[in-house]
Amino acid sequence: MLLRRFAIPLLLTAQLLPGLALAQSAPKFDPITIQAQGSFAVGGTVAQTPGPYNNNAPSAEGQSLHGDHLYAFYQIPQNPKLLPIVMLHGAFQSARSWETTPDGREGFQTIFLRRSYPVYLVDQPRRGRAGNSTVATTIEPTPYDQLFFDQFRLGKWPNYFQNVQFNRDPAVLDQFLRSVTPNTGPYDANVISDAMSALFDRIGSGILFTHSQAGGPGWLTAIKNPNVKAIVAFEPGSGFIFPEGEVPPPMPSAAGTLTAEPIAVADFEKLAGIPIVLYYGDNFSTEPTKERGEDNWRVRLAMARLWVDAVNRHGGDARLVHLPDIGIRGNTHFLMSDLNNVQIADEVSKFLAEKKLD
Amino acid sequence: MLLRRFAIPLLLTAQLLPGLALAQSAPKFDPITIQAQGSFAVGGTVAQTPGPYNNNAPSAEGQSLHGDHLYAFYQIPQNPKLLPIVMLHGAFQSARSWETTPDGREGFQTIFLRRSYPVYLVDQPRRGRAGNSTVATTIEPTPYDQLFFDQFRLGKWPNYFQNVQFNRDPAVLDQFLRSVTPNTGPYDANVISDAMSALFDRIGSGILFTHSQAGGPGWLTAIKNPNVKAIVAFEPGSGFIFPEGEVPPPMPSAAGTLTAEPIAVADFEKLAGIPIVLYYGDNFSTEPTKERGEDNWRVRLAMARLWVDAVNRHGGDARLVHLPDIGIRGNTHFLMSDLNNVQIADEVSKFLAEKKLD
Repeated sequence: MLLRRFAIPLLLTAQLLPGLALAQSAPKFDPITIQAQGSFAVGGTVAQTPGPYNNNAPSAEGQSLHGDHLYAFYQIPQNPKLLPIVMLHGAFQSARSWETTPDGREGFQTIFLRRSYPVYLVDQPRRGRAGNSTVATTIEPTPYDQLFFDQFRLGKWPNYFQNVQFNRDPAVLDQFLRSVTPNTGPYDANVISDAMSALFDRIGSGILFTHSQAGGPGWLTAIKNPNVKAIVAFEPGSGFIFPEGEVPPPMPSAAGTLTAEPIAVADFEKLAGIPIVLYYGDNFSTEPTKERGEDNWRVRLAMARLWVDAVNRHGGDARLVHLPDIGIRGNTHFLMSDLNNVQIADEVSKFLAEKKLD
Repeated sequence: MLLRRFAIPLLLTAQLLPGLALAQSAPKFDPITIQAQGSFAVGGTVAQTPGPYNNNAPSAEGQSLHGDHLYAFYQIPQNPKLLPIVMLHGAFQSARSWETTPDGREGFQTIFLRRSYPVYLVDQPRRGRAGNSTVATTIEPTPYDQLFFDQFRLGKWPNYFQNVQFNRDPAVLDQFLRSVTPNTGPYDANVISDAMSALFDRIGSGILFTHSQAGGPGWLTAIKNPNVKAIVAFEPGSGFIFPEGEVPPPMPSAAGTLTAEPIAVADFEKLAGIPIVLYYGDNFSTEPTKERGEDNWRVRLAMARLWVDAVNRHGGDARLVHLPDIGIRGNTHFLMSDLNNVQIADEVSKFLAEKKLD
């Protein structure tokens, strides 16, 4: 695999950097040649207020609002592979998740662009640059840094896990915590998957990467649109949907109770038509514990295993990779920006090659 | 000018496209080679809630929130010019303003990248991907499409201006209106200029492009940070600051009253040390009118003229270009994405060359 050999020196170079890599002083990577890049909105709706519009004394009357669309930024490399990759972020995040890592290395956006995939980064409806929502919300500044540190498995605040794949420079944690951005309207998996389906209508066939909360909307997108040819889900944590009559019981944990939802068998079986892989990282017990941050992932992994079994029981091709089982240790919830993110990308590349998607 | 000749065929090719240019079917532009790209947060603050943090029963106690930073995405071309360009969007917008135009052509992000400038696109604090605010807000879905159509001078709703530099395909207006995104916290020119100053601390010397409402935070950034070596302001509409004792009287208009603010003379004179150019477009009268959309710009242009005079009276190098005066007609409020945006970019390139900033 030429591309794997190409990528390894990048990681080694970057790891030698002291602290944060600044743009201007970043190591000189091999240049990337881009055929086209740009951005657009897709999906969404128009909310119309009745009445006549008075140009010179405007009120809500007769005016409309465009909202609930997603925003996508794309880059098409020279000599691109046939299938683009669409990357959908998780809760409290934007497309930022896939860009530069908190310690200044290349994220999956640029890593997969270098591997010749057209890459589409999405800000989901009611988040980031797709902020216009048709439903109101209130944003309270909520102090969550320590909860995120635990729940995203950097460690147990204030201590990092011994083997964590995260640079402990305080400036790196600062960058990580500033990737958090709030909902600008109520979270709605249907609104998100409708816009994602419109995206796949626009771009045609592609591979969908999801992170965390995006797992649920990701499954729904593939059900709604046959242009989704594969799903690579990084630590999907909620939104697990099962065929009616096969929904597992709720799973209590120290972080709350995880529930699954029923959908029609015919819809579920649309997921059986495409290859799916789920990756989970390290540093949580598969046995019950009182540690909230860890126990949260115990039940999500357990639910994911049941979900993969259900997909395969219905004739599907789903796989769950718990990275410690294949000797990859120390990963946080943010597999795509961890210190070993090139190794994770290599695992994904192997999967895509095996499924003839590259 | 080699670069101008290079850019012209791009415009002609793109204008031949029927309707929206989709990514996959976009005209094959000359490829762009990028040395590095990525994103980061800079500036902002940390809000700390007192008390001990309980990992297994988390509340606000003992937790912190990172907020009020900006988000920047940068691209460094091969053989870059010395000074990067930083682009700061206006009200209701994000860095999206500078990307692909609503009709699918290249925006200033890629145009100036092709002209060998490193380009930094900013989402200002409390907007877009820099959504985490230390101050709460409520977001109401406000129907503003028709007001924006008038105020951004596409025409007088529902009619376009006869010579407007905007593609009348309804899909283009849809894209334009979906670039709107709300504040996720109160607008605060000081919070924005503090984060912008932190950005210029990080990247060093650079050229600042501002659009519309960003004019005000732009002047403040240059006052706070000597790394701002020039300002190119596209239709600055508010935030005009004058030396104490020289503040002009408020200017009433059909769209409300425009006021200016005083600052210390010593601060104002920091603006006299750098070249500044302000561009304004077409389709508004310089005489009072009852047309709200137009009259709004009459007073903003008038205030801008007084402001340029004040800068120059204090020894500065400021210039105002009302584009119709140099024969460039039909521009909306979004000069950088209008149909003639390559022509506008050429005017800017000429300015930068004249000031030895390229």
